Amino acid sequence: MSLKIYVDRLSQPSRAILIFCKLNGIEFEEVNIDLSKGQHRTPEYQEVNIMKQVPAIVHDTFKLFESHAILRYLASAFPETADHWYPKDLQKRANVECVLDWHHSNLRRGSAGYVFNTILAPAFGLPLNPQAAAEGKKLLSASLATIDTYWLQKDGSFLLGNSQPSLADLSLVCEIMQLEFLDEKDRVGLLSPHKNVLKWIDDVKSATAPYFDDIHATLFKVSEIFQKQRSAGASS
Amino acid sequence: MSLKIYVDRLSQPSRAILIFCKLNGIEFEEVNIDLSKGQHRTPEYQEVNIMKQVPAIVHDTFKLFESHAILRYLASAFPETADHWYPKDLQKRANVECVLDWHHSNLRRGSAGYVFNTILAPAFGLPLNPQAAAEGKKLLSASLATIDTYWLQKDGSFLLGNSQPSLADLSLVCEIMQLEFLDEKDRVGLLSPHKNVLKWIDDVKSATAPYFDDIHATLFKVSEIFQKQRSAGASS
Repeated sequence: MSLKIYVDRLSQPSRAILIFCKLNGIEFEEVNIDLSKGQHRTPEYQEVNIMKQVPAIVHDTFKLFESHAILRYLASAFPETADHWYPKDLQKRANVECVLDWHHSNLRRGSAGYVFNTILAPAFGLPLNPQAAAEGKKLLSASLATIDTYWLQKDGSFLLGNSQPSLADLSLVCEIMQLEFLDEKDRVGLLSPHKNVLKWIDDVKSATAPYFDDIHATLFKVSEIFQKQRSAGASS
Repeated sequence: MSLKIYVDRLSQPSRAILIFCKLNGIEFEEVNIDLSKGQHRTPEYQEVNIMKQVPAIVHDTFKLFESHAILRYLASAFPETADHWYPKDLQKRANVECVLDWHHSNLRRGSAGYVFNTILAPAFGLPLNPQAAAEGKKLLSASLATIDTYWLQKDGSFLLGNSQPSLADLSLVCEIMQLEFLDEKDRVGLLSPHKNVLKWIDDVKSATAPYFDDIHATLFKVSEIFQKQRSAGASS
């Protein structure tokens, strides 16, 4: 059965799925859907995902979107996936599900709201929205504090006190990497109060090397362009 | 093993869990946490759920929050649960997961944002926020349209073209029931353009009778009080 994964590597859930597949030796064809060029709005792509979003997959003839649903499906459909990603034990799995669900209305909403309305909106032909940015930043900060003081409080390097990463670690760290788009001072200001979060990001990077940095290369490149534009603006 | 379910019946995900347990013959003790009295902020309740939210469960010694995580866990931990709620077939399950995940950033965010900022905020000591209400209403309308024209487009009475309801039907319809708090004209205005949604709500109610109406009785009572207050305000 063929597996096609439709992604833009600048999208955080797209990266989580690519890293997951690489780590677990799942063979796939990566199809790039460039969001900044509007490729998610073409009639061809709407045949794949009517919601006009990435990521999406087509496994043989089965179409699926929503990144957490995709991660759960792949972890279950490919038996070579190591158990720690999506444990078969009901209570361990339920804890992972709890973090994945919490993510939507907290870290994801805060981070995406802040980064989009501070940096990315103009690339999509939309104006920056300072009020939405401020609300996003507040929720983002609160979410980072919750990760720092609750999800990472038990023994073990990963969320929930686990000794190996789960789907939740991958999804959440890929989201936080989106902060690379921000001005460095702003990013450091957001992350530096949260020492457990900083260590955990490094632990996830190490546990998913070399794929983590490979898949984030495009993001690092674009982030560098943003930084240069800022420096040019500041010195002109 | 004992199962305690901590709920406020005015909370939509609380109701979904209660109805699910009743329908599947799962025995539990219901513990009422009155949000309007701040009972979710007591130190005792924080021992149950540090996030200070309902619903939450304690199954013997296992604590869990986030309603979709709870529904998945209960459907898996209680083998008497009928398969249609959370299918074992991987692709059928993935489709249910897709709706459950989609819900967070769409129907849930729109509905909760609109209802809270139009009606409920003062009961929690907060001011109404017209701009947040307007954003919520826009997302709520778009979400109802997506349910009407996409999730309910296939044969079968329920989401995804299924002939029996899944966890997704229960979660989403309980969310929509929150619109009972609105002024009737407003609620009808929101729902009436979506004929498939209206039929589906009735189908979910029928499929989950008599528990659906039983568990929603508190909501109907409070909604009636709101309507009377509005009438009194209009005629004074």
